[in-house]
Amino acid sequence: MSVTKPIHAAQTGFPVADGCLQVGGIPVTRLAQRVGSTPFYAYDRRLLSERVAQVRTHMPAALELHYSVKANPMPALVQHLAGLVDGLDVASGGELKVALDTGMVPGRISFAGPGKSEAELRQAIAAGACIHAESERELRTVARLGADLGIAPQLVLRINPDFELKGSGMRMGGGAKQFGIDAEEAPRMLALAATLGLDVQGFHIFSGSQSLKADAIIEAQAQTVELALRLAEASSNPVRMLNIGGGFGIPYFPGEARLDLAPIGAALDLLLPRVQSALPQAKVSIELGRYLVGEAGVYVARVVDRKVSRGQVFLVTDGGLHHHLAASGNFGQVIRKNYPVAIGNRMGSGDTEAVSVVGPLCTPLDVLADRMELPRADVGDLVVVFQSGAYGLSASPTAFLGHATPSEVLV
Amino acid sequence: MSVTKPIHAAQTGFPVADGCLQVGGIPVTRLAQRVGSTPFYAYDRRLLSERVAQVRTHMPAALELHYSVKANPMPALVQHLAGLVDGLDVASGGELKVALDTGMVPGRISFAGPGKSEAELRQAIAAGACIHAESERELRTVARLGADLGIAPQLVLRINPDFELKGSGMRMGGGAKQFGIDAEEAPRMLALAATLGLDVQGFHIFSGSQSLKADAIIEAQAQTVELALRLAEASSNPVRMLNIGGGFGIPYFPGEARLDLAPIGAALDLLLPRVQSALPQAKVSIELGRYLVGEAGVYVARVVDRKVSRGQVFLVTDGGLHHHLAASGNFGQVIRKNYPVAIGNRMGSGDTEAVSVVGPLCTPLDVLADRMELPRADVGDLVVVFQSGAYGLSASPTAFLGHATPSEVLV
Repeated sequence: MSVTKPIHAAQTGFPVADGCLQVGGIPVTRLAQRVGSTPFYAYDRRLLSERVAQVRTHMPAALELHYSVKANPMPALVQHLAGLVDGLDVASGGELKVALDTGMVPGRISFAGPGKSEAELRQAIAAGACIHAESERELRTVARLGADLGIAPQLVLRINPDFELKGSGMRMGGGAKQFGIDAEEAPRMLALAATLGLDVQGFHIFSGSQSLKADAIIEAQAQTVELALRLAEASSNPVRMLNIGGGFGIPYFPGEARLDLAPIGAALDLLLPRVQSALPQAKVSIELGRYLVGEAGVYVARVVDRKVSRGQVFLVTDGGLHHHLAASGNFGQVIRKNYPVAIGNRMGSGDTEAVSVVGPLCTPLDVLADRMELPRADVGDLVVVFQSGAYGLSASPTAFLGHATPSEVLV
Repeated sequence: MSVTKPIHAAQTGFPVADGCLQVGGIPVTRLAQRVGSTPFYAYDRRLLSERVAQVRTHMPAALELHYSVKANPMPALVQHLAGLVDGLDVASGGELKVALDTGMVPGRISFAGPGKSEAELRQAIAAGACIHAESERELRTVARLGADLGIAPQLVLRINPDFELKGSGMRMGGGAKQFGIDAEEAPRMLALAATLGLDVQGFHIFSGSQSLKADAIIEAQAQTVELALRLAEASSNPVRMLNIGGGFGIPYFPGEARLDLAPIGAALDLLLPRVQSALPQAKVSIELGRYLVGEAGVYVARVVDRKVSRGQVFLVTDGGLHHHLAASGNFGQVIRKNYPVAIGNRMGSGDTEAVSVVGPLCTPLDVLADRMELPRADVGDLVVVFQSGAYGLSASPTAFLGHATPSEVLV
């Protein structure tokens, strides 16, 4: 019996021509010249659009699709997606500004997150965005600020469910959490909201993220709907909005396979009519961040030195953990694993070797690929890190060690 | 036999008056008003000066002390330290600018790091800073750029030693590394430098960082000196500079105790005369970053919500991992442990409870203290994270989720 080493899911989104990776239809070598400097992030419009279309194909037509701006807040990218999705989800006053600048209808922008400041809540009420209240204090603050401003706040309750998305990268529901209102507290909060004169339009139930298992997502969505129907019974107002969360993951590491959307869509085809029958006014939405943008982006760095230290080959690049913390293995990972990495101008070259790709920082944490089999590369070549469209630049310590911030382009 | 739970090393640097922590002699509540917004970082001038004086007291008078700017590049702090130390170590062209702005003599600024760009090397040669060359390519580039500019480069070889600092937080020597020139390759590089017309002034040997064990540091320093004396034999020029690295750690986590400087100083008292006798022209220096600044800084965030979820108390603050990645446990730590944390305006309060301190981000990674016993706190109180003077703001993903960047003050 042979044991096969786990490998990365194939990167087929970006075509190769003449041995060179194409991003947005442009050879990555030429794109580097166009950007004017390395390192940079590049996001492919076509792949963004195709991914949204793919989700639409599999999901019920009545299901609304929101983009979670936190996955990638680059304004041009958010603008592109704003034209394709039904709403934008933001997590701060800063993201709210980016969302409003796209021209998205304010009522289709939702603002969730623990610890929203008064200034942020005021901003959201004034904008007419939908606030996902996460605590008793937020409810009271929203009521007071709404009265101050003379504006009826758009409001949904964010619920901390009594279950979690199994096997997800980030558990955000079940157990004690800082997120949302515990499900069992919801009736009391609905009563409080009524006392405060607030119109609660519905619920936001988020149980986890970055799952690659359709079965787990299907189970969580079914539980989410059950919980929403129970919560609706405690609501004196009709439920008009129900955000059932996201959780769709993308493959980062060897051995991980792409999520199969078909069974999720099929299960929602059966589930949605139940909601529509019990809550006829409810718009049901899912929110996806990483799933929409993660596979559409690459991070590109140039090799500035090639060193052999005690038999091990190091490609030293001008990019590293200060730009792409997640690829270095330092953002939530317990055990460091390699992202899929390629030499963008030597695709398909047969002359390979085991190399470590590192950055310019004086820390052993600054690794983009640890002893990976790659085409033999040298100074000037372009290292490409795939799966970099989400939680890349904005989730990285760009000021670390005083290097310049890389560019981002949408092509 | 009773087992005592490990506790944090006592935080005695910041005095307490009327139940309120004092930073730079100012009650932290008043300091928050003075800064004008939370969260913020505050660094205490007195503690910085005292730490430098303490190091000077223990170390031989002939030993030079350098500050590694990467630990904290805040310009006012670097300026303060520039007046107290003998040199500044930088890791990028950006840090070089900060160092030059202090007025430090350029020859006392050293520039180390793998993957230096041509632009950075040109900048350093033009400034008259000392380049720590880390590869054959860098030597060749430095020679070419020096000729272009008509300036003889200040030059030292950074060596990857054939040993490591045992038990250090970050091993940066021994084995295959991207840092420096393998010790066994140094004779060839010295010969190459001579061929290129470069004057190699000495060596920089760095074996690791963040060690709390005096014995391990003493052993590494002894090995460093042995290696330097061997390398000197291969050098046709007299050794004028010898940087023996740093490695002095500070206690972050429960059970860790402060490093004892006395035995390190005593060992160097015996070691340094050996160097002075063999290499009479050599200035010997140590480089300390974290050790000089780490304990002089605090991160201060305000409680914006207090929630009880399924029996667990959460203090939701306006600060979190986007400002202080290391305290959240997401910067190089394998297992998350709590930094020392206090409620700055309730010091010594007897009414305590087990709480989790979290930030405003929509991610379960955003934790500043996990189930820690703290004085009972509420909205408006100030959470203080100690040991935050190094690798704090500059090592954090400040753009994450679009919140404002916090202020830094030197008081």
